[in-house]
Amino acid sequence: MTSSTALLTDRYELTMLDAALADGSYARESVFEVFGRRLPLGRRYGVVGGTGRLLELIGRFRFGDAELEWLRREHVVSAETLDWLADYRFTGTITGYREGEVYFPGSPILTVEAPFGEGVILETLVLSVLNYDSAIATAASRMVHAAGDRPIAEMGSRRANEDAAVAATRAAYIAGFAASSNLEAGRVWGIPTMGTAAHAFTLLHDTEEEAFRSQIAAMGVGTTLLVDTYDVKTGIETAVRVAGPKLGGIRLDSGDLPKLVGKVRAQLDSLGATGTKITVTNDLDEYAIAALSASPVDNYGVGTSLVTGSGAPASGMVYKLVAYRNESGDWVPVAKNSDGKASIGGRKVPVRHLDSAGIATSEVVHIVTRRPPRDAGRELLVTLMSGGEADASFLGPDGVKAARAHHRRAIEELPEEAFRLGAGDPALTTLFV
Amino acid sequence: MTSSTALLTDRYELTMLDAALADGSYARESVFEVFGRRLPLGRRYGVVGGTGRLLELIGRFRFGDAELEWLRREHVVSAETLDWLADYRFTGTITGYREGEVYFPGSPILTVEAPFGEGVILETLVLSVLNYDSAIATAASRMVHAAGDRPIAEMGSRRANEDAAVAATRAAYIAGFAASSNLEAGRVWGIPTMGTAAHAFTLLHDTEEEAFRSQIAAMGVGTTLLVDTYDVKTGIETAVRVAGPKLGGIRLDSGDLPKLVGKVRAQLDSLGATGTKITVTNDLDEYAIAALSASPVDNYGVGTSLVTGSGAPASGMVYKLVAYRNESGDWVPVAKNSDGKASIGGRKVPVRHLDSAGIATSEVVHIVTRRPPRDAGRELLVTLMSGGEADASFLGPDGVKAARAHHRRAIEELPEEAFRLGAGDPALTTLFV
Repeated sequence: MTSSTALLTDRYELTMLDAALADGSYARESVFEVFGRRLPLGRRYGVVGGTGRLLELIGRFRFGDAELEWLRREHVVSAETLDWLADYRFTGTITGYREGEVYFPGSPILTVEAPFGEGVILETLVLSVLNYDSAIATAASRMVHAAGDRPIAEMGSRRANEDAAVAATRAAYIAGFAASSNLEAGRVWGIPTMGTAAHAFTLLHDTEEEAFRSQIAAMGVGTTLLVDTYDVKTGIETAVRVAGPKLGGIRLDSGDLPKLVGKVRAQLDSLGATGTKITVTNDLDEYAIAALSASPVDNYGVGTSLVTGSGAPASGMVYKLVAYRNESGDWVPVAKNSDGKASIGGRKVPVRHLDSAGIATSEVVHIVTRRPPRDAGRELLVTLMSGGEADASFLGPDGVKAARAHHRRAIEELPEEAFRLGAGDPALTTLFV
Repeated sequence: MTSSTALLTDRYELTMLDAALADGSYARESVFEVFGRRLPLGRRYGVVGGTGRLLELIGRFRFGDAELEWLRREHVVSAETLDWLADYRFTGTITGYREGEVYFPGSPILTVEAPFGEGVILETLVLSVLNYDSAIATAASRMVHAAGDRPIAEMGSRRANEDAAVAATRAAYIAGFAASSNLEAGRVWGIPTMGTAAHAFTLLHDTEEEAFRSQIAAMGVGTTLLVDTYDVKTGIETAVRVAGPKLGGIRLDSGDLPKLVGKVRAQLDSLGATGTKITVTNDLDEYAIAALSASPVDNYGVGTSLVTGSGAPASGMVYKLVAYRNESGDWVPVAKNSDGKASIGGRKVPVRHLDSAGIATSEVVHIVTRRPPRDAGRELLVTLMSGGEADASFLGPDGVKAARAHHRRAIEELPEEAFRLGAGDPALTTLFV
């Protein structure tokens, strides 16, 4: 994890920097803000994901010889700008919502304060990380709620870009998933990993029984056997005959699950395998999970729908300049007026209002270039990076644990209607004051 | 690009290996096949993406100290299996469709031949790369066709995981996109990059005019000015006043484009800027591009819809054991019979039948464990890796160029109906013989 992230950047950021270095405006103290104009698909809340990853990636946003040489050869920027980039290191301040926090339309999720030149070139990296990870965390949180007390394992790595898969696993865990199949996510982020066997293992052996015997010899009777390669009923008979009634679990990866699971439970019970757990993994999403709530499922495994954000694979967050300090030392709020894409200028301080029972009632965003906040609501901003140094508590596996715990707390504040799966309005209204 | 890819793997692959090493079945010569059961969203054809990337990533699928130590600590596999992994290097053969080739339901896109233990642990890496890159290439190819002769630039990095973004850019270029905003894709894959300025640059300056003057001073009058920060009409007046009628281009990133573009062209022409090009970049997908075909657009920029596969962010490809060689030396075709997810056993050799005009008529897949192929159709398989060594012609920027050229040829063979944007049947029927 030492390679440069500096070219994970859209070319226009460097050409803007080039022009701003030439005209002097690069040094203007600036405030950039990340927000989403709306929640996707009529969802009721969003979940901030990626913050801890982002802080590490910004630490590696340095232009080394390979990057500079390529920029020179391609004439992307001037020689002066190359010199400036060679010394580049982000020295500004980043505040934002905690990772795992919930957000609503217009919530100022991240605020980057730095000279324009330092901040403008982070746009793509910031958005790539927050847009993808938040899309996954948002979908995952709905699935976790739909599953109730039953654990969900993340198994979608094969349906996402190989690096995105690790990020998706991390985001899902923050939003309450119990474990993942992805080993790299285990190694790097400390996420519990799980998994036993695929159909290939059964197919490789001359009989299903031989495959089950081999798996039990290697992993013990507590393992989970995949029983649907040929015929589920026969598979379960064989599984319990081979493992005995102490068999840990069986997995179903096909079929009409709401119908099948009850029969499977009855068969297991009739064979004395009353403690054998049932894991289902067949193209599940939050709706399929909810539809199985009355079925005797013990564990869910979710793949494709998780890593693709269950219909919303990108969160739609944008990174906008909202204020700069002019030569007189005054902060100037700025906003574009583009048709359908207008923004709100000024630095912002968001708080969440709660009622006496601790349930959130609104998201109040103070535009502090207008007046300073005086508000009893829960403050939503924390300092993530200061003087270019990340707060270590947000990094690595500890940061993941903290974000997971924070998500659980943030969710507890939400009103009942936040958890409806149907499309509708955001659970909280965002007020700009 | 030297870090290990070995843990971009689902845990069950290593636990299967563990059991197979213990029972001896790990050494069975095996054939694994990648295919998709269907094309997403009623599309007419799919495009294979990611092959060149995959070959490089398999070359880095080695277990180093960091990976082995973590596996040991987590008790994922036995000590014997750890020793085996320490020496692991893929030594098998990989054949497959060329990158950029089109494919249909059941097309055997990739075939991995190796001892079971060597092949089984590549499943997740193979699928992650092919599923994501093919999803992007498939969406991109439709967009390129919808755009006709007008170039499309890829600008979606901010709406995808930061590493996935580089892969998406590469896949889009293979499918015919002209350029990308992503600098890392330029550096690593040799893809042309583009981009000039965002709204932030205009907002940072005291007036739009100052911003335009600065940009032109740095980049010349051939640059493209973003004119919709405040008011498009005024923006264009200012742009042409500052740059003169030789202004290279203007960009529109908002508004009702089919209505707006005609007016903008007329305004530019009336100002004498008849050669100034119009680039549009507002939430485009293949349908929006098609809807602009009668408007005087010169260049499209596509972001979110490209990197999210325009509604189908994962291709749904699977990696299945289809044959193994038993102790008598006979090849045994294997297939699972799972409800709704049955597979077809046996090694396969696909060819594409063409009519006398060179137009494809069907995808014929010979199951060679049944009988050897004798077929005048175009052979679809090439050897990508042999004895664990990749064919260098598929790697790096040269591999990307070759894939792009191949895609153009493959597309020319498709019948007219393949290019309909509406949902429907695959353009070719796949026949298993």
